[in-house]
Amino acid sequence: MSEAPFVLRSDDEGVVTLTLNRPQNRNALSFGMLEALRDTLARIEEDENARVVILAGAGPGFCAGHDLKEMRATGFDDAFVERLFSLCSEVMQAIVHLPKPVIARVHGIATAAGAQLVASADLAFAAKDARFATPGVNIGLFCLTPAVALSRNLANKHMMQMLLSGELIDAETALRFGLVNEVVAGDSLTEVTAAFARKVASRSPLTLAVGKRAFSRLTELPLSEAYAHASKLMADNLKAHDAREGIEAFLDKRDPVWRGR
Amino acid sequence: MSEAPFVLRSDDEGVVTLTLNRPQNRNALSFGMLEALRDTLARIEEDENARVVILAGAGPGFCAGHDLKEMRATGFDDAFVERLFSLCSEVMQAIVHLPKPVIARVHGIATAAGAQLVASADLAFAAKDARFATPGVNIGLFCLTPAVALSRNLANKHMMQMLLSGELIDAETALRFGLVNEVVAGDSLTEVTAAFARKVASRSPLTLAVGKRAFSRLTELPLSEAYAHASKLMADNLKAHDAREGIEAFLDKRDPVWRGR
Amino acid sequence: MSEAPFVLRSDDEGVVTLTLNRPQNRNALSFGMLEALRDTLARIEEDENARVVILAGAGPGFCAGHDLKEMRATGFDDAFVERLFSLCSEVMQAIVHLPKPVIARVHGIATAAGAQLVASADLAFAAKDARFATPGVNIGLFCLTPAVALSRNLANKHMMQMLLSGELIDAETALRFGLVNEVVAGDSLTEVTAAFARKVASRSPLTLAVGKRAFSRLTELPLSEAYAHASKLMADNLKAHDAREGIEAFLDKRDPVWRGR
Repeated sequence: MSEAPFVLRSDDEGVVTLTLNRPQNRNALSFGMLEALRDTLARIEEDENARVVILAGAGPGFCAGHDLKEMRATGFDDAFVERLFSLCSEVMQAIVHLPKPVIARVHGIATAAGAQLVASADLAFAAKDARFATPGVNIGLFCLTPAVALSRNLANKHMMQMLLSGELIDAETALRFGLVNEVVAGDSLTEVTAAFARKVASRSPLTLAVGKRAFSRLTELPLSEAYAHASKLMADNLKAHDAREGIEAFLDKRDPVWRGR
Repeated sequence: MSEAPFVLRSDDEGVVTLTLNRPQNRNALSFGMLEALRDTLARIEEDENARVVILAGAGPGFCAGHDLKEMRATGFDDAFVERLFSLCSEVMQAIVHLPKPVIARVHGIATAAGAQLVASADLAFAAKDARFATPGVNIGLFCLTPAVALSRNLANKHMMQMLLSGELIDAETALRFGLVNEVVAGDSLTEVTAAFARKVASRSPLTLAVGKRAFSRLTELPLSEAYAHASKLMADNLKAHDAREGIEAFLDKRDPVWRGR
Repeated sequence: MSEAPFVLRSDDEGVVTLTLNRPQNRNALSFGMLEALRDTLARIEEDENARVVILAGAGPGFCAGHDLKEMRATGFDDAFVERLFSLCSEVMQAIVHLPKPVIARVHGIATAAGAQLVASADLAFAAKDARFATPGVNIGLFCLTPAVALSRNLANKHMMQMLLSGELIDAETALRFGLVNEVVAGDSLTEVTAAFARKVASRSPLTLAVGKRAFSRLTELPLSEAYAHASKLMADNLKAHDAREGIEAFLDKRDPVWRGR
């Protein structure tokens, strides 16, 4: 029996929209869903026509986290569980390390590993009705891997509030905590996100890749090492056609023509 | 001559309230006060009936930091001073590493090592009249150890503003800086904090311990190591009774029964 | 032919104001400008009459970042570019490591390495008209070294918004992101900044140096090492005349007399 794909992909002038496609299951991150995400991201990495990724959810919400029914159906099998969390962490890091910007477009619920997807994205736009939580404490399973992603975005007290209360926070609170970049009316969410994505997609893909690739290390290294690393990368970036073209175009007050190298 | 205890403890259904009890001395962290805190926290760690800790101050304020009179009385004895700062750092880390959530309940003044207590707690609720400062620069002694705790909560510029100005910030500014989670009217502070604590205390103590124990490492490790560590801990967490019970209860739409293992 | 100095210096009771002085070039950080900044900061480090530094820009804005015309004029010479980025990183770290507080006073535009100067300063006051950006993506050259400084101040999502959009953010947004400490009316910016600087300059220079010297390490070390380091430094600080004098003066309710040792 054929099944609907876990992840829908649509392309529009360099902007790739990936839609988690198990609305009846609140787009839970089942093993199959995570494999589909991993494989799709790997293809996007190699696809030079893909410039920017929008991550969205089909149906009433963004993503409700892991698929608890699937976990129970395996009898909480140790080997399955270990592979599951390992795969999930792989997907989250694939988002962080993808050399192309990833924008989460959040409506409805984004909970547990769903909130982690939002935290792992480079940017996030949220509808006014969006709600976020790391509710693991409610079910005896602390949201440890989501905490890794949250800790890269939120102040400690804000993160602990989410982790210890397990309660939903609304979009405005998520904005205040730094989990999302902008909150917009639900009916303009798709267009606001697309407009931002199109703008990013108009930039040199080489430049975007240089930035994304460097990002994790620059924030993790001690200051002096981070500067040594960044200075070298920046000098390298300036050897590229697109950097020289960009500077020439800027100084000559004309539009640049990117070659992606 | 007998003395009032440095720290008062009261227990209410798993919620332990610790009250710094030297109001005439603005609950200064004298050597004796720090020893009492250290010993009390050690007992709480072993006490399976203690689920959550509220940290509060008796009298007009929360805590005014170190006991400068005591320091002077020793003639600023080098050995005493070294033991004092070492003990103080030990207490602050005991709060961070206690496998049970710690909530600061702040009214009035929380300055120097008193602000550090707030920063070291997992969560903080503040009365509208609460005021915070790291005023070491005013007395020639830079608030270095408080800066360690502040730097885990505040953005650099906010922290430097506190450290270099030495001035009091009000509760709303502390909220904006991420030093506290919520600001409430003074006469509802006790009840709001207790309600949150009771809620946390209703969760599996095993799950809370898993979260608190992991927290420091998850935020300090590089991303890939943090994920490897968190994935393993989460798979381990799922082997516990309470996680399986929590998931079963959630899927079966009933209340979970925790066993703490 | 003599040229106006790149950096103007004026001293007023311990407050040193450094003014980037290429208004016709939007105070671009040319090689000469960076050398002047480096040399001036080195002199200030040795100058015991210099207590606090204000960093400002002459003309309509603060600083527009690197001098792209100069880069082009060298034909984007590899050796020049490497020396340039290396020198720029050296200057930024000189600000972070200067054992005296540095306050950015920002009006108009602060972009690319100009925004990095703001991020590298300990504190920043901004006029209502101030605007900030890391617009490297617009010219094919990702703002990697500015990202190092921004990442020490901003939450990841806020930083990525600046880096990926390349767009100007206004002063209120910079305040929300933690890039500046206060936004004031343009015509009071100079006085508000000076008042804060005078206050800081009235403190013990030894104490300020202790704090600034420790700062980077305290925020970068793991918690237990940070506390061990800070406790030791704080006990050392307390051996100094100024700390004992400060505490005595505080307890005796009189003004302290600093000796800077």
